[in-house]
Amino acid sequence: MQKTELLYEGKAKKVYATENPDYCIVSYKDDATAFNGLKKGTIVGKGVVNNRMSNFMFQLLEKHGIKTHFVEELSDRDTVVRKVSIVPLEVIVRNKAAGSLSKRLGLEEGTPMRVPVLEFCYKNDDLGDPMVNNYHILAAGFATQEEIDKISSMALKVNELMLEFFKSIGVDLIDFKIEFGKTSDGEIILADEISPDTCRFWDINTHEKLDKDRFRRDMGGVEEAYAEMMKRIGLN
Amino acid sequence: MQKTELLYEGKAKKVYATENPDYCIVSYKDDATAFNGLKKGTIVGKGVVNNRMSNFMFQLLEKHGIKTHFVEELSDRDTVVRKVSIVPLEVIVRNKAAGSLSKRLGLEEGTPMRVPVLEFCYKNDDLGDPMVNNYHILAAGFATQEEIDKISSMALKVNELMLEFFKSIGVDLIDFKIEFGKTSDGEIILADEISPDTCRFWDINTHEKLDKDRFRRDMGGVEEAYAEMMKRIGLN
Ligand SMILES: Nc1ncnc2c1ncn2[C@@H]1O[C@H](COP(=O)(O)OP(=O)(O)O)[C@@H](O)[C@H]1O
Ligand SMILES: Nc1ncnc2c1ncn2[C@@H]1O[C@H](COP(=O)(O)OP(=O)(O)O)[C@@H](O)[C@H]1O
Ligand SMILES: [Mg+2]
Ligand SMILES: [Mg+2]
Repeated sequence: MQKTELLYEGKAKKVYATENPDYCIVSYKDDATAFNGLKKGTIVGKGVVNNRMSNFMFQLLEKHGIKTHFVEELSDRDTVVRKVSIVPLEVIVRNKAAGSLSKRLGLEEGTPMRVPVLEFCYKNDDLGDPMVNNYHILAAGFATQEEIDKISSMALKVNELMLEFFKSIGVDLIDFKIEFGKTSDGEIILADEISPDTCRFWDINTHEKLDKDRFRRDMGGVEEAYAEMMKRIGLN
Repeated sequence: MQKTELLYEGKAKKVYATENPDYCIVSYKDDATAFNGLKKGTIVGKGVVNNRMSNFMFQLLEKHGIKTHFVEELSDRDTVVRKVSIVPLEVIVRNKAAGSLSKRLGLEEGTPMRVPVLEFCYKNDDLGDPMVNNYHILAAGFATQEEIDKISSMALKVNELMLEFFKSIGVDLIDFKIEFGKTSDGEIILADEISPDTCRFWDINTHEKLDKDRFRRDMGGVEEAYAEMMKRIGLN
């Protein structure tokens, strides 16, 4: 499978067409952004970590019945995925308060949630990815109720599987963001990526951050945190 | 029924205890605030309008099966209501985009919603009344799922009844905010107020604003707008 033209370039990945209209190739970059693009930088080697870790996670989830866009890893940075039309929602699952949820509800970071908290944000950089509820989604036509139900149950299942896996490697999964897409035959599958860019990982004992918050908050040790996650997963 | 001690003073009303622990007396003020208290002013006569209009609306809703806190109007500004423990949620129903929804979704004010949009905000001035979803409400314990369901269906019913009534007096009901409370025996009833402070009213033909947006946006004719609503309802 070979790249033909560049379809679009996002903040972290390029997406290329292939000869097969049902597939595309994603190519992971080292570019890092935060605060809706206000902060920009590079995390050396991030593209490799995020590509390989995403593919590992997608394969793990597939084994447990979650359909994903993963097809084949071509190289350290490039992967063939099923081409989908992305549902314009960032789907966030939270096990403990952090980031915007801490601010929203005035909760200290790390406060456990009684139940996993699911949030939807409208994927729109110009509007700052605003949080939306079921009614907004239906009124704006971002998804149907059936799609929302499917996405919600898949997201909560992904959370259960990821919680268990990360616990087994000494990592507390605080929260994560995933995206879903619709295949040409209308099926909803998990797409985009699962990486330290899109998850909050804390060491289960020391609570040390092993994710992009080190970049967002200028904490240093960014590359080391990404490498540590790779090591714990067994990918190096 | 007589006021005993002042229980609390809000931005628009004072709430007094009475000899009967199941009742309190609300006293409507002319004080006006906007943008979470950043803007402050006075709308002369507003307390009278809001008290009388709220009581009119509560009685209209009661006739159609909505339980409310209304008991007895004592004077132009004072009303006996059932004392409730307020569910800490601002319940917003929107028929057309305006205000924060226009900003959130990038919609022009007046854009019709395909379906009425229900929103919950956590009633907390320090946090700026942040929007919350079902999961936040359950995780934070603001209400139970049963209470959310009850509140949602009551709010949508209130919207249907209000839409119809306001249309009959030449007013387009753009959106409104209501609050619910729990009585001592755990029943959820409609509380607080229904007034030009808490609803967006547009003249159905000219789209002239007949509500607190005239104060928020320094449009002038504020008292006149409140008086016009009273006149259309037939309360003067
Ligand atoms: N399987 C897929 N098919 C088509 N597009 C995808 C797929 N997976 C992810 N995308 C999209 O690829 C784009 C590039 O990714 P990324 O650089 O992370 O973008 P963003 O700047 O939106 O975060 C995003 O719009 C993402 O939704
Ligand atoms: N029936 C009721 N029993 C007890 N409290 C009530 C009742 N109806 C309204 N309240 C509360 O009275 C307080 C004063 O009202 P208001 O001045 O509008 O307050 P706010 O500044 O929160 O808008 C509010 O906290 C409101 O929730
Ligand atoms: Mg992305
Ligand atoms: Mg109020």
